[in-house]
Amino acid sequence: MRQSQLFTKTRREAPKDEVAKNAQLLLRGGYVYKEMAGVYALLPLGLRVFNKIVQIIREEMNAIGGQELVMTSLQQKETWEPTNQWSDKEVDVWFKTNLKNGTELGLAVTHEAALTKLMKDFVSSYRDLPSYIYQFQTKFRNETRAKSGIMRTREFVMKDLYSFSKNEKEHLDFYEKAKGAYVRIFKRAGLGDKTYLTFASGGMFSKFSHEFQTVTDAGEDIIYIHKGKNIAINKEVFTEEIKKELGLDDDFVEAKAVEVGNIFTLATRFSDALGLMFKDEEGKDTPVFMGSYGIGPARLMGTIVEVLSDEKGIVWPEAVAPFKYHLVNLATDDIDTTKLADELYQELTSKNIEVLYDDRSGISAGEKFNDSDLIGIPTRIVVSKKTKDGKFEVKDRKSGEVAMKSKDELL
Amino acid sequence: MRQSQLFTKTRREAPKDEVAKNAQLLLRGGYVYKEMAGVYALLPLGLRVFNKIVQIIREEMNAIGGQELVMTSLQQKETWEPTNQWSDKEVDVWFKTNLKNGTELGLAVTHEAALTKLMKDFVSSYRDLPSYIYQFQTKFRNETRAKSGIMRTREFVMKDLYSFSKNEKEHLDFYEKAKGAYVRIFKRAGLGDKTYLTFASGGMFSKFSHEFQTVTDAGEDIIYIHKGKNIAINKEVFTEEIKKELGLDDDFVEAKAVEVGNIFTLATRFSDALGLMFKDEEGKDTPVFMGSYGIGPARLMGTIVEVLSDEKGIVWPEAVAPFKYHLVNLATDDIDTTKLADELYQELTSKNIEVLYDDRSGISAGEKFNDSDLIGIPTRIVVSKKTKDGKFEVKDRKSGEVAMKSKDELL
Repeated sequence: MRQSQLFTKTRREAPKDEVAKNAQLLLRGGYVYKEMAGVYALLPLGLRVFNKIVQIIREEMNAIGGQELVMTSLQQKETWEPTNQWSDKEVDVWFKTNLKNGTELGLAVTHEAALTKLMKDFVSSYRDLPSYIYQFQTKFRNETRAKSGIMRTREFVMKDLYSFSKNEKEHLDFYEKAKGAYVRIFKRAGLGDKTYLTFASGGMFSKFSHEFQTVTDAGEDIIYIHKGKNIAINKEVFTEEIKKELGLDDDFVEAKAVEVGNIFTLATRFSDALGLMFKDEEGKDTPVFMGSYGIGPARLMGTIVEVLSDEKGIVWPEAVAPFKYHLVNLATDDIDTTKLADELYQELTSKNIEVLYDDRSGISAGEKFNDSDLIGIPTRIVVSKKTKDGKFEVKDRKSGEVAMKSKDELL
Repeated sequence: MRQSQLFTKTRREAPKDEVAKNAQLLLRGGYVYKEMAGVYALLPLGLRVFNKIVQIIREEMNAIGGQELVMTSLQQKETWEPTNQWSDKEVDVWFKTNLKNGTELGLAVTHEAALTKLMKDFVSSYRDLPSYIYQFQTKFRNETRAKSGIMRTREFVMKDLYSFSKNEKEHLDFYEKAKGAYVRIFKRAGLGDKTYLTFASGGMFSKFSHEFQTVTDAGEDIIYIHKGKNIAINKEVFTEEIKKELGLDDDFVEAKAVEVGNIFTLATRFSDALGLMFKDEEGKDTPVFMGSYGIGPARLMGTIVEVLSDEKGIVWPEAVAPFKYHLVNLATDDIDTTKLADELYQELTSKNIEVLYDDRSGISAGEKFNDSDLIGIPTRIVVSKKTKDGKFEVKDRKSGEVAMKSKDELL
């Protein structure tokens, strides 16, 4: 798209009340807009990144048999009472509201009870299982503090998948597949090197849950990384007993990290409480065995910014970048240069290559380069009066390396 | 996808409390799930239809220069007070809630004030205009009654576009373009013949607004259609004066209709109240001239069901159908028949043709045909023991016509 048409602009300074680096850079680059503390709108550039992350997650969920739906934010008390999740004492991040007739409603914080209830319409026999259901859906959480930019917000889309299995063995088979899918997601999103499968507290129904923790100073968690085994243990369960059980020696490194994904076994907590039963092959009524698998695409986006930015701005990995190329015309008032740049833009877009074309006039080369560094598109193509012999100056945002490339090489 | 894997099932009867035909059929077909009155989840089949409608709208909005973002549901009082839209007396469909510190928040009913405020960060000069900004975003409306199925709900995604122009002339140019885009959207969605551009009340800042009204008994509005001119007038403004002004004789037909889209001029109501000003070419501070353009994709989906279903079930137009083909295997226990059906399924899907493959065993031919009619995929391909000579029985859902087609013709 032509940058002269893009309605957003970069800004030199982030608002003073914004303390998180991810939000500072995303606000400055025109990726997000702060509606209030902990509540951010996605501007066109931000939405492009967000949608690419969503699509990576969707592909990996579909690849392990996930079926996509979209549930609702408005929730009734009756759905959440059987699992003791309605009371504000039990779940302290509800936003509650009321229908005109006074009926109290809640805005969904999560969906396991709601989906368990829904599945009662569709599961009756062992032949109906297993099922893996997921959504990208807006959650609302009444967080007391909101200082982590887009990494922890009061309104955010979450990918939540729930697995419905006949028994623990079938559940564990899927659980391992989900682990693999999560590893692929974080690798594709550019965080593979910094993200560790982390043993964490399992809650009531299993010894452990598993988190995917990305190492960054912006993280709220402390993990202990065993580099030899490429796994980690969350501080909350980091004991001698656990280390021994996992067969790990004492070669750990402590690190701050952010939880970018989690998977855990719900077992029969929800199916028991809400009555999601099936008849097994012997005709016996049996509760469905469940698991839960979450990723917040915006948190992942914020984490990428925290981990991969440099002093000049954001550095997007190509798979999630808003555009592949940033084509910068340094001489918009020069007819020949602009013709050359226009033609390259047309050819690239006609081949469905995503290009942000800085065709703005009245902006200095320095400003254009600063904007380009801040926005963080992986590859910059410069067209200027010096461009000649069909060779374009191409700069890699991450390494800073410059090369001369022909149109064919760019296409 | 294989129907045996699809977690939803059809059902013979709709729930007794569901009075709207669209919801009855969509519930029976496994397209939607009713969370509570006026609140529906989209199941996998429903999400596929919904996404196709969204994509049609997106393409048409992009074609007229729209830029997509996503704003937030959580809204602050400060944003809506300047336009007198915060008080429940002025806007009576707010859901309100509270932050932990007691601050009152609202769930957005619409977004014109919020976007006007946002644009103050990006608009300062005439060079920044015009801009056309849109989103697909969840609105919440505290409706007293909710009896129209998915056509009027308490939680729904709306496509809302807002135009920001330098003056009325520039606004009206875009307004005409938006009309054209809306006509194309309803045509592509299969409702072109039944949908009329309708003159309606304009509110404070213009004589008329324009609605797109689709004729159906399920509609809540009364319109008067002038068949000769192919336009209509909403009952609320159907006076002799208006007829004369529009140059229409008295050749009208009264009809019930549902409003599937609306476009209207906001003029400077929001920019004045919220201070969205720009410096014109003479350096003079001028309020931005605005317009608003809405479509609810789920309402459109419900309207398609109301208008195009028959006594057997839903009849989707191909452009929004969940799948192009419904491939029905009538002899899943016969190895040769199943091999033939499996191969056809593989070949179609390998060519990215969308197929729902009824590979379910233990279901009679009659049940499979009933399900297929209810689900309403445009074209059914039947594979049975009688299938021979490489010719498949192909039935058109709408006309009921049967033809014999080769694999090549189907591909």
